[in-house]
Amino acid sequence: MVTDPEPNPGIGPTSQKGKGRDKTDLRRGVSRRGLLLGAGGTGLAVTAGAAFGLGRGTAPQPDPEDLLHGSQKIDFYGHRQAGIETPAQAHAVLIAMDLNKGIEGEDARRLLRLLTDDAARLTQGLPALADTEPELAARPARLTVTFGFGRHLVKLLNPDKVPDWLKDLPEFEIDDLDPQLCGGDLMLQLCGDDPIALAHARRMLLKDARAYASPRWMQDGFRNARGTQSEGSTMRNLFGQVDETVQPSKDEDGKEFAVWGHPPAGSSPSLRPWIEGGTSLVVRLISMDLDGWDELARSGKEASIGRDLRVGAPLTGTAEHDEPDFDAKTPLGFPVIEDFAHIRRAHSQAPEEQILRRGYNYDRPPQGDGRISDTGLVFLSYQADVTRQFLPIQQRLAEGDRLNEWTTPIGSAVFAIPPGCAPGGYIGDSL
Amino acid sequence: MVTDPEPNPGIGPTSQKGKGRDKTDLRRGVSRRGLLLGAGGTGLAVTAGAAFGLGRGTAPQPDPEDLLHGSQKIDFYGHRQAGIETPAQAHAVLIAMDLNKGIEGEDARRLLRLLTDDAARLTQGLPALADTEPELAARPARLTVTFGFGRHLVKLLNPDKVPDWLKDLPEFEIDDLDPQLCGGDLMLQLCGDDPIALAHARRMLLKDARAYASPRWMQDGFRNARGTQSEGSTMRNLFGQVDETVQPSKDEDGKEFAVWGHPPAGSSPSLRPWIEGGTSLVVRLISMDLDGWDELARSGKEASIGRDLRVGAPLTGTAEHDEPDFDAKTPLGFPVIEDFAHIRRAHSQAPEEQILRRGYNYDRPPQGDGRISDTGLVFLSYQADVTRQFLPIQQRLAEGDRLNEWTTPIGSAVFAIPPGCAPGGYIGDSL
Repeated sequence: MVTDPEPNPGIGPTSQKGKGRDKTDLRRGVSRRGLLLGAGGTGLAVTAGAAFGLGRGTAPQPDPEDLLHGSQKIDFYGHRQAGIETPAQAHAVLIAMDLNKGIEGEDARRLLRLLTDDAARLTQGLPALADTEPELAARPARLTVTFGFGRHLVKLLNPDKVPDWLKDLPEFEIDDLDPQLCGGDLMLQLCGDDPIALAHARRMLLKDARAYASPRWMQDGFRNARGTQSEGSTMRNLFGQVDETVQPSKDEDGKEFAVWGHPPAGSSPSLRPWIEGGTSLVVRLISMDLDGWDELARSGKEASIGRDLRVGAPLTGTAEHDEPDFDAKTPLGFPVIEDFAHIRRAHSQAPEEQILRRGYNYDRPPQGDGRISDTGLVFLSYQADVTRQFLPIQQRLAEGDRLNEWTTPIGSAVFAIPPGCAPGGYIGDSL
Repeated sequence: MVTDPEPNPGIGPTSQKGKGRDKTDLRRGVSRRGLLLGAGGTGLAVTAGAAFGLGRGTAPQPDPEDLLHGSQKIDFYGHRQAGIETPAQAHAVLIAMDLNKGIEGEDARRLLRLLTDDAARLTQGLPALADTEPELAARPARLTVTFGFGRHLVKLLNPDKVPDWLKDLPEFEIDDLDPQLCGGDLMLQLCGDDPIALAHARRMLLKDARAYASPRWMQDGFRNARGTQSEGSTMRNLFGQVDETVQPSKDEDGKEFAVWGHPPAGSSPSLRPWIEGGTSLVVRLISMDLDGWDELARSGKEASIGRDLRVGAPLTGTAEHDEPDFDAKTPLGFPVIEDFAHIRRAHSQAPEEQILRRGYNYDRPPQGDGRISDTGLVFLSYQADVTRQFLPIQQRLAEGDRLNEWTTPIGSAVFAIPPGCAPGGYIGDSL
């Protein structure tokens, strides 16, 4: 058994790198055990070794179970929902449902109470109330369940609270949307590091929702497995690009502003969340033409993105997080970062145009049409206001991003993310 | 950078538990780094901490990259192929292909040379020769690529070497096989702990095979993520049962006998592999009716299996690995383990009826038919002789396993597993 020493996030070689994220974890109240294990199975292992005083001969030996990340939990209850600022877990499942015919406000509240209870239990490694496979719930591995509401559901709960931006995105010329992959009244975003815990949670939530709602679309996704690379490394998509380099500043205020609508201290840009403690989620299922992409030379790929492929540095820099120099010119006078390069089109001077991205790759056997892959990205972005933060970026990209040649949005949805809840409450009770 | 101390598999709390498997790793020549990290991201972390002398102040600090399991490699070259006795990784992708029309022996050998080269590189964290996304190859996370040959391919390579058992299994009444999920001339079993490395390897291999062969079926699967539970824990399937408790004895001879056909020292049961260093693989895609299963009470589920669900102990015992007592009776005189319980039907007295199981779960969104899941098990078993080892067990189960009520085989295939190869050679060069 463990002596449960005070956590010391300052120990271990990754403590600097992981700092910003550890803070988030602390705020969300990750268990002490989680902290000891730290944020990525990396230096934290060393931290654990040091904390347990191994090799000193007198300290108690750790229970090996405590050194595994299967038992790590992310708090469910809180003013804000988990699964947004939580460092992205390895696997995700999105479930979008439509309320069944005849479901009114009270039924919807009953459904939300039920699913909240399931989520609160499953994320803490406890079986759901009517869990038929309780053993599969025992190791949540940072499972989170994040609720998103479509327009119809918010309207049912409180017609005065429907945000302006809660509707389908405008049509873009690049879109080739499948209605079966769009919209939904209620979305559950399940994330976790263990695929078995995730499969079980998906099933329990779908079973309990069955009397009230029917699946509209479901989508799996993955990033790197837990512990395969340093925490805080940017993930790569299946084009091989580092993806999500630019995020709202890790500085508390920057992220608060972009995701939760709170202006940075000392400034006063106006941006308000639709509800205190809430935010919004944009989902875009983006199919990627890997065969077409691979016909490009490496230099052509890099020019399309505006970054090198090896480390993800802007073509005007040497390290991933270098600021791109959009004015830099080649000796012949051409811009180093081309006019239609992805990062130039995505870049903005407007302070409100920041979004928190948290995407997942997908890759599945194609449906017998001769192709060898059905590959893409589940683009997920969180922002306080879809219209003012997400749309301008998306519009610039839709109009002139070179990457559009090899990418096609096939699914799209917008959800209002309600605040979290306290024990005894339920997600949506603030409406 | 790391001082590269001699590995000491004896340090750390899991060293006892992991011993049998470490031996396998040693034989396969896992890198020193792999050994230091050990077999499960568990106590090995502590091992690493101790080995690096952390806290003593004078020893060099480890490179955090070396503490991550993304860089762990399983040797590709060797007398036997990897991915069989290798402790099962978290994710698997099976790719079954048919040779294109007109492909003769020499073309087939060219294909095998090409894929062998790809596999040898990718498993070691190196890009394939014409790799278009080399960055995705950098962290193999114990990637293995195991080749299986169908009857047509063995015949092409050497008609004298076709084993008797290399053909479709006989039809069983329980089967509801989809021809699209059966057979294949060449099968690649990709296993690894990181889904991104796996997706990349799948794509590279399929691309390079494209001129010679076309995908027939593909199947993904998962077990618990690396490091979520102690190495050597038995996995659970999505019915919640512990699965694969009974395996060929870990004692060298027992496993050698069952998988490679070498008789245990001092005994002489006759069993021979089709080729020295080779074995066979049976694939069964088994769909599981979770909704039906969940209508059963817990006691009914346990009776169907013959084990309790909590720890997987036989109903006559208390721990998972207790020997079942098939003669035990209830006070009323009924057998404690029912006549049609799964473990009674699977059990055999015949020494040759041993198989090495290495299965994976699958769970995917159903194809819009109102169900909430499309769930099952990718059953994989390795044995020296399909007819003498696998078939008798399968026949008993097909005739009277209670679990058949909730499970349906929908896919089936048998492959001959050729020996491994040496650097410069290729898988199949011994034919």
